[in-house]
Amino acid sequence: MSDKQESSNGTSAAQRWLGYRPEIRVLDCTIRDGGLMNDHMFESEVIKAIYDACLAGGIDYLELGYKASKKIFARDKFGDWKFCDEDDIRRIVGDNETPLKLSVMADAEKTDYRTDILPRSESVLDVIRIATYIHQIPTAVDMIRDAYDKGYETSCNLMAVSTVQEWELDQALDALAKTEVDVVYLVDSFGALYSEQVQYLTRKYLSYMKAAGKEVGIHTHNNQQLAYANTIEAIIQGANRLDGSLAGLGRGAGNCQTELLIGFLHNPKFKIRPLLDCIQQHIEPLRQDLKWGYDLPYMITGQMNQHPRPAIAFNEQDGPKDIVAFYDSMTEKV
Amino acid sequence: MSDKQESSNGTSAAQRWLGYRPEIRVLDCTIRDGGLMNDHMFESEVIKAIYDACLAGGIDYLELGYKASKKIFARDKFGDWKFCDEDDIRRIVGDNETPLKLSVMADAEKTDYRTDILPRSESVLDVIRIATYIHQIPTAVDMIRDAYDKGYETSCNLMAVSTVQEWELDQALDALAKTEVDVVYLVDSFGALYSEQVQYLTRKYLSYMKAAGKEVGIHTHNNQQLAYANTIEAIIQGANRLDGSLAGLGRGAGNCQTELLIGFLHNPKFKIRPLLDCIQQHIEPLRQDLKWGYDLPYMITGQMNQHPRPAIAFNEQDGPKDIVAFYDSMTEKV
Repeated sequence: MSDKQESSNGTSAAQRWLGYRPEIRVLDCTIRDGGLMNDHMFESEVIKAIYDACLAGGIDYLELGYKASKKIFARDKFGDWKFCDEDDIRRIVGDNETPLKLSVMADAEKTDYRTDILPRSESVLDVIRIATYIHQIPTAVDMIRDAYDKGYETSCNLMAVSTVQEWELDQALDALAKTEVDVVYLVDSFGALYSEQVQYLTRKYLSYMKAAGKEVGIHTHNNQQLAYANTIEAIIQGANRLDGSLAGLGRGAGNCQTELLIGFLHNPKFKIRPLLDCIQQHIEPLRQDLKWGYDLPYMITGQMNQHPRPAIAFNEQDGPKDIVAFYDSMTEKV
Repeated sequence: MSDKQESSNGTSAAQRWLGYRPEIRVLDCTIRDGGLMNDHMFESEVIKAIYDACLAGGIDYLELGYKASKKIFARDKFGDWKFCDEDDIRRIVGDNETPLKLSVMADAEKTDYRTDILPRSESVLDVIRIATYIHQIPTAVDMIRDAYDKGYETSCNLMAVSTVQEWELDQALDALAKTEVDVVYLVDSFGALYSEQVQYLTRKYLSYMKAAGKEVGIHTHNNQQLAYANTIEAIIQGANRLDGSLAGLGRGAGNCQTELLIGFLHNPKFKIRPLLDCIQQHIEPLRQDLKWGYDLPYMITGQMNQHPRPAIAFNEQDGPKDIVAFYDSMTEKV
């Protein structure tokens, strides 16, 4: 733990390093972000195993998937965790009378939030995480209000910040600071950010959110093997909400590994052993099919601050692959 | 590039970020550190391909292997690159009339340095890198003097610093600052260091070396997927000598990937394309056999600040492996 983490109190550097910041909360997004690699078609026993492992591991929040619009996405083309219907969730977790809070992600313009998100009193869900691109902020603000009014904790994940102009970002953060949202996440969708950029952006987010009584979170991708390192950097700067996924399972290069993160956080409530067990039994067996994780194509899109789509397409090709040809195609002048 | 990297001049933050620090030098240690995974038995064409790629990629130094004692290590049990005889090197690189400088590593107490290291005038080598544990510093100092007197650039890699007591480290750095050594490396042998520790140690190393006109370098291992991130942190603090390896090939979890590093450094002399080509054609085909790179056993030894030996042994087992049993064995009270 950082000697900068509790700079406002009078404890020594050693006490701070060996101590922990009790406000820190970890959200495991294995099922939600990993679902982007298999159209959310997880076996129920995998979902249950992840739920059990997160509970035993002291994880604070578990994200189960999306609340996607059934008007936009055909119900039979995706797994249950694209839609997170109440019955499907309860099939796994019952009434979830545990300390593990449950979240779903709702994408701006891809969610029928008014109808599909039930009042919290009728749902086993605790948190609605609203994902938005910069140009959808007005929609996101409306979604935050809707979820807040229904009784949920809310967060806003402002995606692809590495492509956002700074004056627009300032406007977005100002707008979000005025909402009822509990947490605003710094989201490195392309795995393109370096530590100094994370430092700068986390400080900027905090400058807007702290005064408004809100928390700042971080969600990273591992295109440059910086997902965990950038999460640590955000912690050092003061971010208290951290996304991780088991074995990094997530879109493309995947996310910050929850098991690495737990190794860094000193709060004794976190346990790594149940996470290792779940990874071994339920996550690693998926790797052959889902093919997430750091590799050269993802490195190249990350270094170029590009969406990983071309790298995913490259990896899905059958037959021999030529990374130099991929590099050339990405750097071609058009 | 860091906005802290050139804090002594008057350029703007943007100029510094988009600029580069011309003093930075990259050493590729693929063959040397990777040789620890195959007893240094590389095919000549792989050595030649790495040499060609580093040359085309603008890499500053290429490390070919060790100068191991033939009294300690049987010549027929290891490949040529354990010993780096002059004839074997010249077989690949001729007289190396190129800007790419060549180095070998000499381990304290495992090198017959007086006899086996030729005068530089008779060798195609440019640099002797002396590797030492803290208790071998007097030997290392003698080896530095020997190599310096023979005309070489020299460096000292003080290994396993994450296990060294601080008062001993201060003594070692003080002793090294008084030698003729050109570079002292911060070496995270166990892949155990976090960014703040790298920051603290780099500053400490610089406090001794800068006044003595020496450079500080960094050599990392990727047990916690922090090899690249920690290298960036050391750059930010002022380290100018950086070790990388192609695809991270190196002992255990491997090293900072040279191709990631080149993506961060803005000096136009560095080219990533020839490195990608070499990785695809010559390095990745070795992965099945050599099995280097980040995985859970290496993560566990890294998190515990332990030598990766038990993780390497675990990975070399035949048949099914149980990561939870490995974790239990590492955390067992004895």
